Amino acid sequence: MLSNAQSKYIRSLSQQKYRKQYKVFLAEGDKIAKEWLSATSPVQMIVATEDWATQQEKLIKKHPEAELCIVTAEELERVTVLQTANKALLVVPVPDPGMALPVSGWSIALERVQDPGNLGTIIRIADWFGIGDVVCSPDCADYYNPKVVQAAMGGHLRVKLHITELEPFLQNTALPKIAATLGGKSIYEIETPESGILLIGNESKGLSEHIQQHADVKVTIPRKGGAESLNAAVSAGILTAMLCGR
Amino acid sequence: MLSNAQSKYIRSLSQQKYRKQYKVFLAEGDKIAKEWLSATSPVQMIVATEDWATQQEKLIKKHPEAELCIVTAEELERVTVLQTANKALLVVPVPDPGMALPVSGWSIALERVQDPGNLGTIIRIADWFGIGDVVCSPDCADYYNPKVVQAAMGGHLRVKLHITELEPFLQNTALPKIAATLGGKSIYEIETPESGILLIGNESKGLSEHIQQHADVKVTIPRKGGAESLNAAVSAGILTAMLCGR
Repeated sequence: MLSNAQSKYIRSLSQQKYRKQYKVFLAEGDKIAKEWLSATSPVQMIVATEDWATQQEKLIKKHPEAELCIVTAEELERVTVLQTANKALLVVPVPDPGMALPVSGWSIALERVQDPGNLGTIIRIADWFGIGDVVCSPDCADYYNPKVVQAAMGGHLRVKLHITELEPFLQNTALPKIAATLGGKSIYEIETPESGILLIGNESKGLSEHIQQHADVKVTIPRKGGAESLNAAVSAGILTAMLCGR
Repeated sequence: MLSNAQSKYIRSLSQQKYRKQYKVFLAEGDKIAKEWLSATSPVQMIVATEDWATQQEKLIKKHPEAELCIVTAEELERVTVLQTANKALLVVPVPDPGMALPVSGWSIALERVQDPGNLGTIIRIADWFGIGDVVCSPDCADYYNPKVVQAAMGGHLRVKLHITELEPFLQNTALPKIAATLGGKSIYEIETPESGILLIGNESKGLSEHIQQHADVKVTIPRKGGAESLNAAVSAGILTAMLCGR
């Protein structure tokens, strides 16, 4: 059972303000909770139904640092913001900020990607293709938003996430910068560097002019049909697969 | 203003049962409404705020067949299921079924894709790459679900959508069949046919064995990182781009 204070604490974490204040975030749902408990990152609180906790006893034992709360499915439903967290929910400490920005390999930099589903899906793409870093401009969706965590499917455990102003980052890196734009060179025709930064822009406005100016190459996924645009996460997936998936 | 009967009618269309009964569906939000009105397909009802209707007068005049209802933003909010339909909403007749299944070019066939956002995004991908047909198994999400229409961003206007049992369709076509699976050949290494059917499966279970048996080639997007899987729409986007985007 959850005390009133515990319920209030968990519910508050759907808001960025409280995630920042308490330096924790939520990882919700069976699949994500299992993935998190399998990892070595610390967990603050495990809120789960009795059935789930029995089934996952081994995983739970790996985390003696975590407070375990057994609840009913109804109690769980009352504290979650997602529809899928009907078995388990974790409260997880935010990793220490101040990780160094990427200086080698491939990374993805996002300017003002605002849909949490897109941001999470892009983290999942980075995780699939072994990209170590995703760099977000400060006006992107908060990557500890429960919907981002949900869509990233555990990507937070493996992909280093940074928030920083993109311009100084781009100015200070020697890595090739490849900008996704509507009027660039065909992705089928460019020479692919060994490493670099893939720049993806806002869902409706794309990359701003001043960010595009830092690009070494502007690339486009050529359109053959009638759609006005592609979804930002799908574009990121296609470009990532073609640039660094081989 | 909307009458009670009109409000009830529009609200009922969030349910598949009523969409089937009335043979209409909803196209909601500024962007999608404009795209629909720009096209020649008939529209049954235009529900819009006064500002929007004034701005879009020319487009609205192209559709004398449509009943125009001017409403307040609050009234609109009460009848829509989406958060974005704050300016306009259309009721659109379902196109005649019984279109012939694809026999040439590229098409995408979906087995039990259940998330409306994924289905809509895949229709948008088909629309971007000029793929004329998306074939859904009967247990896919309903492609007239408002969330599918929303995510497809007008793709319903250009991509022919079919519902059919996949097995007889696959048995009766001479087109090459390429199945997206986890254990197939690398997408970077297969020879790409000129035309074919790209088969995409359920979000968590993938393609069933009996559908995979019809495949001429099984392809995989090779994993380099730690993620367990890629989002279904992202996979479809990557495979479509690599198979038929050139």
